[in-house]
Amino acid sequence: MRGPAAGGYKERRVTPSALNPIGVFDSGVGGLTVYKALRAVLPCESFVYLGDTARLPYGTKSAETVAQYALQAARRLMREEIKLLVVACNTASALALPVLRNSLDGVACLGVIEPGAREAARTSKTGHIAVLATESTVRSGSYAAAIRSFRPDAEVRMLGCNLLVSLAEAGWHEGPEAEAVIARYLRELGTGFDTLVLGCTHFPLLVPAIRNRIGPEIAIVDSAVTTARSVRDYLAAHNLRSPSTESGTTQFWATDTPECFTRIAWPFLGDEAMPPVLHVQL
Amino acid sequence: MRGPAAGGYKERRVTPSALNPIGVFDSGVGGLTVYKALRAVLPCESFVYLGDTARLPYGTKSAETVAQYALQAARRLMREEIKLLVVACNTASALALPVLRNSLDGVACLGVIEPGAREAARTSKTGHIAVLATESTVRSGSYAAAIRSFRPDAEVRMLGCNLLVSLAEAGWHEGPEAEAVIARYLRELGTGFDTLVLGCTHFPLLVPAIRNRIGPEIAIVDSAVTTARSVRDYLAAHNLRSPSTESGTTQFWATDTPECFTRIAWPFLGDEAMPPVLHVQL
Repeated sequence: MRGPAAGGYKERRVTPSALNPIGVFDSGVGGLTVYKALRAVLPCESFVYLGDTARLPYGTKSAETVAQYALQAARRLMREEIKLLVVACNTASALALPVLRNSLDGVACLGVIEPGAREAARTSKTGHIAVLATESTVRSGSYAAAIRSFRPDAEVRMLGCNLLVSLAEAGWHEGPEAEAVIARYLRELGTGFDTLVLGCTHFPLLVPAIRNRIGPEIAIVDSAVTTARSVRDYLAAHNLRSPSTESGTTQFWATDTPECFTRIAWPFLGDEAMPPVLHVQL
Repeated sequence: MRGPAAGGYKERRVTPSALNPIGVFDSGVGGLTVYKALRAVLPCESFVYLGDTARLPYGTKSAETVAQYALQAARRLMREEIKLLVVACNTASALALPVLRNSLDGVACLGVIEPGAREAARTSKTGHIAVLATESTVRSGSYAAAIRSFRPDAEVRMLGCNLLVSLAEAGWHEGPEAEAVIARYLRELGTGFDTLVLGCTHFPLLVPAIRNRIGPEIAIVDSAVTTARSVRDYLAAHNLRSPSTESGTTQFWATDTPECFTRIAWPFLGDEAMPPVLHVQL
């Protein structure tokens, strides 16, 4: 089993360098929507993307298990001298961010929930906000808490939509099957909100079908884009942006085989050429 | 983290006792359809059911990863002095049975594919047989090989249907969403077969919706029932049946938390009371 060349284990880092890569962690391939947004906003940065494809999905699993997996992944990325960890998975952000922040002293850890929540709080006119997420993210209550931290009067409703994950991974983004599944979830969600948060990195692939169902008036918040902007702002504020003379590179790592990653990643990469992938064990 | 009381590690067993339990291993909760069929046919047997809920599903994962997980689970069950290992997961049966049989000397290992294949070969009049399974099971080619071993002239077509797993786990067994997804898969499968094998333990929950689509003429083979009969025959042939004076017991183990198992098991247990579950780590 191959693994990337690894430096010594170093959990505490006090001199992060602007030239170091950004670590991006996801349960599998959904985080590629966040990675693509990051690359678009930060073309001079280098990335190490780790997808835990051998244990995906996280959205059906317990907080204990997700926190354990996330910590293993984060520790592996820390060995690459990353300057920042982006948790590009809503479920891991919801269930593991406090554990990660307590454990990875010296490197900041940004999730996707806070940026999405801030954007939703800012966007909504009425304060009535709905969130589609995985079952595990919903159970955590993280989105409602994060939205209310920015807007205490917000009325937040959340719905677990695990089947949307499967639709996105199957590449069935439109058509009668996607429409039927989305229609059922949106019926369960009810009406009366003016802002809809896509609380799972898979859901941006389903935006045309969701938009088709909810009509043009409701704002859709995609946390991939808002997270990328938050990362850019964080790097700038901490003097950690890579010089504009650099051209960023990306390494893709996966806990299942490279072939497995390639097979399930295609709906998320679109026209991008499939990169080589390294197999790592956590 | 609690684990069941464990005896010493013993990989080689040469004196299996009829009073020992049967080990049942699954990637999660789909194997409960096999377990229920086993209990119905073998009410005097005791069972230890192990669901790898912390790493489910297997149907999207590589052969290497599934074999590794199955071997860890089988070794854990061997420590309970099981008299037989039933691999109640089509994907694990397809990808890991040779590894398991090579590694678990002294205890037989029965999968779900051979019984389903034998039944399909026996049932089909025309020899045209279709199999619905997970993507990983389809890639393995195991069903086609097993069916042809019983009936060399068989024409076998297979289709990966990962979304049916999600539908079953969501409890969306009927209604317009199930119908739309099933209709699409059955269109891709085409026509001309007279026997349809449910090559994943989740699919029996969707039989009414599948039957509704394919009409009354095509035979549906559910490998849960045929596997239970094979296990009964194996025990009888090897003088391993528990005496009829025994009343069987069951232990449920899961690699994620008991709450997680309980939450996702309900569509598979139907009216049965939810049993207590022990958390084990592999």
